[in-house]
Amino acid sequence: MTRISRYPVPSLAELPEDIRARILEVQEKAGFVPNVFVTLAHRPDEFRAFFAYHDALMLKEGALSKAEREMIVVATSGANDCLYCVVAHGAILRIYSKNPLLADQVAVNYRKADLSPRQRAMLTFAVKVAVDSAAIDDADFDALRGHGFADEDIWDIGAIAAFFALSNRMANMISMRPNDEFYLLGRPPRS
Amino acid sequence: MTRISRYPVPSLAELPEDIRARILEVQEKAGFVPNVFVTLAHRPDEFRAFFAYHDALMLKEGALSKAEREMIVVATSGANDCLYCVVAHGAILRIYSKNPLLADQVAVNYRKADLSPRQRAMLTFAVKVAVDSAAIDDADFDALRGHGFADEDIWDIGAIAAFFALSNRMANMISMRPNDEFYLLGRPPRS
Amino acid sequence: MTRISRYPVPSLAELPEDIRARILEVQEKAGFVPNVFVTLAHRPDEFRAFFAYHDALMLKEGALSKAEREMIVVATSGANDCLYCVVAHGAILRIYSKNPLLADQVAVNYRKADLSPRQRAMLTFAVKVAVDSAAIDDADFDALRGHGFADEDIWDIGAIAAFFALSNRMANMISMRPNDEFYLLGRPPRS
Amino acid sequence: MTRISRYPVPSLAELPEDIRARILEVQEKAGFVPNVFVTLAHRPDEFRAFFAYHDALMLKEGALSKAEREMIVVATSGANDCLYCVVAHGAILRIYSKNPLLADQVAVNYRKADLSPRQRAMLTFAVKVAVDSAAIDDADFDALRGHGFADEDIWDIGAIAAFFALSNRMANMISMRPNDEFYLLGRPPRS
Amino acid sequence: MTRISRYPVPSLAELPEDIRARILEVQEKAGFVPNVFVTLAHRPDEFRAFFAYHDALMLKEGALSKAEREMIVVATSGANDCLYCVVAHGAILRIYSKNPLLADQVAVNYRKADLSPRQRAMLTFAVKVAVDSAAIDDADFDALRGHGFADEDIWDIGAIAAFFALSNRMANMISMRPNDEFYLLGRPPRS
Amino acid sequence: MTRISRYPVPSLAELPEDIRARILEVQEKAGFVPNVFVTLAHRPDEFRAFFAYHDALMLKEGALSKAEREMIVVATSGANDCLYCVVAHGAILRIYSKNPLLADQVAVNYRKADLSPRQRAMLTFAVKVAVDSAAIDDADFDALRGHGFADEDIWDIGAIAAFFALSNRMANMISMRPNDEFYLLGRPPRS
Repeated sequence: MTRISRYPVPSLAELPEDIRARILEVQEKAGFVPNVFVTLAHRPDEFRAFFAYHDALMLKEGALSKAEREMIVVATSGANDCLYCVVAHGAILRIYSKNPLLADQVAVNYRKADLSPRQRAMLTFAVKVAVDSAAIDDADFDALRGHGFADEDIWDIGAIAAFFALSNRMANMISMRPNDEFYLLGRPPRS
Repeated sequence: MTRISRYPVPSLAELPEDIRARILEVQEKAGFVPNVFVTLAHRPDEFRAFFAYHDALMLKEGALSKAEREMIVVATSGANDCLYCVVAHGAILRIYSKNPLLADQVAVNYRKADLSPRQRAMLTFAVKVAVDSAAIDDADFDALRGHGFADEDIWDIGAIAAFFALSNRMANMISMRPNDEFYLLGRPPRS
Repeated sequence: MTRISRYPVPSLAELPEDIRARILEVQEKAGFVPNVFVTLAHRPDEFRAFFAYHDALMLKEGALSKAEREMIVVATSGANDCLYCVVAHGAILRIYSKNPLLADQVAVNYRKADLSPRQRAMLTFAVKVAVDSAAIDDADFDALRGHGFADEDIWDIGAIAAFFALSNRMANMISMRPNDEFYLLGRPPRS
Repeated sequence: MTRISRYPVPSLAELPEDIRARILEVQEKAGFVPNVFVTLAHRPDEFRAFFAYHDALMLKEGALSKAEREMIVVATSGANDCLYCVVAHGAILRIYSKNPLLADQVAVNYRKADLSPRQRAMLTFAVKVAVDSAAIDDADFDALRGHGFADEDIWDIGAIAAFFALSNRMANMISMRPNDEFYLLGRPPRS
Repeated sequence: MTRISRYPVPSLAELPEDIRARILEVQEKAGFVPNVFVTLAHRPDEFRAFFAYHDALMLKEGALSKAEREMIVVATSGANDCLYCVVAHGAILRIYSKNPLLADQVAVNYRKADLSPRQRAMLTFAVKVAVDSAAIDDADFDALRGHGFADEDIWDIGAIAAFFALSNRMANMISMRPNDEFYLLGRPPRS
Repeated sequence: MTRISRYPVPSLAELPEDIRARILEVQEKAGFVPNVFVTLAHRPDEFRAFFAYHDALMLKEGALSKAEREMIVVATSGANDCLYCVVAHGAILRIYSKNPLLADQVAVNYRKADLSPRQRAMLTFAVKVAVDSAAIDDADFDALRGHGFADEDIWDIGAIAAFFALSNRMANMISMRPNDEFYLLGRPPRS
C-alpha cells in the first residue's frame, strides 16, 4: 500500500472518540477520508488544535466567499510547493467556485488566473504574507482597502495565509500524500 | 471570447501553407488546436524554428521515454511558474505515463512524486539547468551517470530543460492561455 | 499610548470568560500580560486554537527540553524577521536555559551560538522547515537520527517550526509589538 | 588542445552538407568558426532549429537596431552568468555599436552603462523576462510603450531574451568555450 | 576559555606600541576590551586601516547623530546575520539613543522599530547598499533628499553600510565572538 | 565631459599633499589616474583608510600571488555586479596573470575559467564570503586546507573578499565610472 505519511497512521479504532467522530463525519460528507485527518491524528492534541484553527478561519462568517478562501489556500500552497494542499484544496476550490479551471491556474500563477482585480489584489497580499511577511506595511493594507476590503477581511486573508504556512510545512515535513480522489474532484465528466 | 494571447492571433486562412498544414495536422490528431500553435503563428519564422526545435528534442529516438521527456517539461515549467506549459504538458504527461496523478505531483514538487530514484535524479538535473545552469559541473554529470544515464541522455535532459526555458518565457510574456481541453485530458472518467 | 497591534485590542472586561481566565493566569505567573494574548484575543476562536496548538507543542512531555523548544522558536523567528517572537521567546529562552547570552546568539546566527552539535543539527532542520520545507527529504531525517533524535522528536522540532511559521506571519501582519518587559527578562542584574 | 565542449565536436568533414555550408559561410565572414557552431553541430537537427530561431530574431527587420539586439543578449547572458554568450556577443555588440566599452558595461551592470533611458527600459524588460518572467504584467508593457516601443518591438525584446535563456543554458550545460578571438574583437588597436 | 576567534589572539605585550595604546585607551573608556580590537590585532596593518576607516565614518562631524550611525550598523549587520556587530553595536546604539529597546528592534526588523519616517528611509537605503548595491539609482537618492538628507549625508549612510559590509564579513569569517559585557550594556537595571 | 561620480571630484590642486602625492605616484606608474583615486579623494580621511587597507591586503607578502589576489577581486566584484571593480581589476588581473582571457572568464563565471582546482577552491571560498558569509563554517576552512592553503592564506582570501565588499558598495553607490583605459589594458595588440 502506498505510504501516506513518514509517521505511523492510526486506525480509526485506536483514536480518541472525538477525533474518530470528526473523521467519520468528514467521511460521510466527502465519501472518503482525506489523508490530512488520519496522518495528523498521529498527534491527537495537535489534531484538535489544527482543525479548530482551520474551522475558525474557513467556516466563519465573513465577506470572503468560501471560494475566495480556497483561492488563498491554493495560491500560498503553490508558493510553498506543498503537494497535499495544492491537490486537496485545489479540488475544494473547483467545487466552491464551480470553475474546473481556476484551481490549476491559481496554483501555477495566480496572476494569469481568471480572477477579478479585487481577487488578484487579495492573492498578492496573501502571497506576501506567505513569503515575505516581515515587509508587510501600511501600503499593503491601503492597496486592499482600495479594493473595498475591510480591515477584518484583511485579517482573514492574512490569517488564512498564515495558517497554511503551518499546514504546508507539516505536510511537506511528513510527506503527506493527497488522496487519489482529490485529483478528479470538481472536474466535469469527460464527454 | 477569452483572450489567449496579448498579441493578435491569426486565423488559419491568413497563415502560410506549411504552418496551416501543421496546425490542421495537430487538430486532426488532438481534436482541437492547442493555443501554442495559433499564438506563436503570429510570427511564422519563429513558429517554424520553435516547432523544429521542439520536434528535434521531443520526437527523436533515445533512451528517455516520451513520458520522461514530459516529466522534464512539467517539472521545469513548474519551477518557472508557466501556466500554459504546466497545463498543456501536464495533460500530455498523463497520457504518455498512463498515470493520472503524476503530472500534478511533478508540477508542484517532483521530490514527492511517484517516481523512481533514476527519474528523480533526472529531474534534479533538469531543474538545475532551468534555474541555476551556471553552477552545473562535473558532479552533476557524475550523479546522472551513476543512475545509468549515458552522456547523450544527459544532453537530452538538459536540452529539453533549456528549450522550455525559452518556451516558458514566451508563454509568460504573451500571456498564452491553455486551452480548456487540456485540464481534463488524460484524467480517468469520473465514476 | 504605544500601539501594540494594527487591530483593536479588547479590554479584559469584554472578553469571553475562558479567554479572560487564561490571560489572568498568565498575568499572575509572568507579572504582566504578553501582548500576544490581548492582540490575538481580538478573534476569540482563533485565540483558542492558537493557544491550544501552542500548548500541545510547547508544554507536552518529550525528549526536547523546554530550552531547546525555545531555541527552535527563536532561530526560526529570526529567519522570518519576526520582532515579537524574537524578543518574547528570546526572553523565555534566557530563563529556561539560564544562559543570558544564548537567545541573542540564536536569533542572529545559530551557527555561532553556544550550542552542542546535536542542538545545532536540530536548528538546521528547524530552519529548513521554516524557509525551504518543500526540499525536506530522507537525508534530513537521517542527519537528525545520527544525533540521537527519535522520529517523534523530529516531529516535535518540525511542528514547532511550522507553528511559529504561522505565529511569525500573524505577528508581522498585525504589527504585534513586544512588551517592553521582555527585553530585560532573564538578563542578569547589572553590577 | 583546449576542450571547447563536454561533448564530441564533429569535424567539418563529417557534418551534413547544409551545416558544413553554414559553418564555412560564417568562417568566411568572421575569419574563424565561432565555437557555438561546431559544438552544437553535435546534434544536427537541434543545430538547424537553433540557428533558424537565431536568424529569425537577430536578422529580421524591425525597430530594434542590431546593436540593441546584442545589448539584450549581453545583458541577459550576464544575468545568467553565461561565459560563452557574454564573450561572443560582447564582441558583436562592440562591433555593431562601434563602442568598445559598452559590452563590458552591459555585461556587468546595464544600469551603469552608457545607454539612453529608452535602452535602459528595454534592458529592464529583457532582464525581467530572463529572470522573473512569471511576474511580467501590463505595467511592464506600459512602461515600454511610454518609451515609444510598439508591441511588436516588445515581442522582439522578450523573444530575444527568451531565446538566449535557451542558449545560455545549453552553453552552461556543455561548458561551451568562447573562441579566444572574441575577447579582442571590436576593441580598438592599442596605441 | 571560550574562543573569540578562529585565529591566534595576540597578548597586549606582543602588540606594536600604537595598537597597544589604542586598545588601552578603549579599555580605559569602556571598562573592557571589545574583542574586535584583539582579534583584528592579529594583523596590525589591517587593524590600523580598519580603525582609521571606522573613525573616519563614525567619529566625524555631520548631520547624522551618533545614534543614527549605530542604527545603520545594527540594521545592516542584522541583514548580514553578523553576531559580533549586532551585539556590540546594539549595545552602543542603546547607549547613544538612551533607548533600551531600539537596538533589538532594528536588528530584527527596522520597519517595526520606534523610528521616525526619516530614519526609516535612512535604513531602507542603508540596507539596499548592504544587500543590493548594484540596483542603487537616482530614485534612491531622491527618496532620501525628500526626507531632508543632503548628498553628503547620503554618502555617510552608504559608506557606513559599505564599511560594515566589510566588518560583518571579517567577523563572520573568523567567528569573532562578542564580549559577554555587550549583551547587557545600555539596558536599564532590573527593578 | 562624462561624469565619473555622483559626487564632486576634487582637482589635484585642492587635495591634501599626501593624497596628491599618492595620486601623482600612481599616475606616474600607470600613465593615467584611475578614477577610484580622484572620486574617493572627495573624502580625504576615508581615502587614506581605504588605500591603507587596500595596500595592507594587496601589497603584503604571502602565499597568494598577485594574480590570485586579483582573481579574488574580480570574482567577488562580478558577484556584486560592480562595474568599476570588474573593469579596473580585470585589467590588473590580465597584466599580473599575463593571460588576456582570464579576467573576463572569472568575472562572468569563475567555474568555467582556466584555473587550477586550487584556485577554483580559493574563489569558491571568496564568493561565499562575499555573498553568504554567515554560513562560513569549519568545512569551508577544511576544504581550503585540503588544497594546501595555510590558515593565514585563508585570512588573506577572506579579507580581500571582505574589503572589496566595501569597495564594490562604494563604487555602486557613487556610480564610480571606470577609466576608458582599463578596458584595453593587458590585452594583446590586435594583429
